[in-house]
Amino acid sequence: MKAVAEIQVIPIGSGVSVRTEVKRAHGILAEAGLQAQLHSYGTNVEGDLDEIFAAVRRIHETLHAEGTVRISTFLKIGTRTDKDPDLAGKLF
Amino acid sequence: MKAVAEIQVIPIGSGVSVRTEVKRAHGILAEAGLQAQLHSYGTNVEGDLDEIFAAVRRIHETLHAEGTVRISTFLKIGTRTDKDPDLAGKLF
Amino acid sequence: MKAVAEIQVIPIGSGVSVRTEVKRAHGILAEAGLQAQLHSYGTNVEGDLDEIFAAVRRIHETLHAEGTVRISTFLKIGTRTDKDPDLAGKLF
Amino acid sequence: MKAVAEIQVIPIGSGVSVRTEVKRAHGILAEAGLQAQLHSYGTNVEGDLDEIFAAVRRIHETLHAEGTVRISTFLKIGTRTDKDPDLAGKLF
Repeated sequence: MKAVAEIQVIPIGSGVSVRTEVKRAHGILAEAGLQAQLHSYGTNVEGDLDEIFAAVRRIHETLHAEGTVRISTFLKIGTRTDKDPDLAGKLF
Repeated sequence: MKAVAEIQVIPIGSGVSVRTEVKRAHGILAEAGLQAQLHSYGTNVEGDLDEIFAAVRRIHETLHAEGTVRISTFLKIGTRTDKDPDLAGKLF
Repeated sequence: MKAVAEIQVIPIGSGVSVRTEVKRAHGILAEAGLQAQLHSYGTNVEGDLDEIFAAVRRIHETLHAEGTVRISTFLKIGTRTDKDPDLAGKLF
Repeated sequence: MKAVAEIQVIPIGSGVSVRTEVKRAHGILAEAGLQAQLHSYGTNVEGDLDEIFAAVRRIHETLHAEGTVRISTFLKIGTRTDKDPDLAGKLF
């Protein structure tokens, strides 16, 4: 199922700057072959819903393996049946 | 990977009342065997992250199959390595 | 304007446990006279929208004054014109 | 207090397309003099927290006055004391 999503990953109990973890997460989304658009409050992606979920799980696994103790992720997921959901279609 | 999550499903372009769709979504979470706590702004669940994601996909598939044209879902996902994440541990 | 809301306050760069800050935030919501229901992923409140916003600002001010360097808050706000929005009406 | 925010307004019980309402909301943010960046999953703004909240209230009031029966808004609010929060600083 095709979906659009917004993904925001927040490490908890790490430093005040979370730039390293956010860059890592963004890299994993890019490796996943998902079309990804970074903005100031998260990363918007479009692609297959299962692949989006798999990428989010990989972000949690990777950050935990690299030392982040606690992670809170905010996801928005959009699907529709009247046309293909895409990021461009949500702009005006 | 064990996770806690909050799931809020919003049908777009359906009626002003979304009770039918929310009950349907809640039923699917219950069927998935996830421990689920309904509250006024979503449903909190705890369980395996892959099973949580599979249940969310099933909610989208089911509601679309039953006529909902557009769905926006808000998810919060929490994981941690210092102890098992659980819903009870997030209360005080 | 009457509203229902969900408020989740996340201190960034503090400890892995955020219990102290969450309890503080919850206390400020209670002092504000807003009907507040704590759940595992935030606090649901119902009341006047301006008072809800004022309480959120007071939470940020108070936690910053007490040493929290960075705060990220997630808010859901619901209003409607067909009937009074209330937390009970969102359950089934 | 200076803040960064993400604002996503969802009309419930309106049409499958919410473009008209989203454009209206975006216009109100622009009129408020807040620096606003539209993206595919919301609008990021930076400015005074009270002015951000006032603009969100005005969006709800305006859309309701123009016929939207029910509105659900998702807000992310970020403040920090170590430096001025700004949208540019959240990119890398």
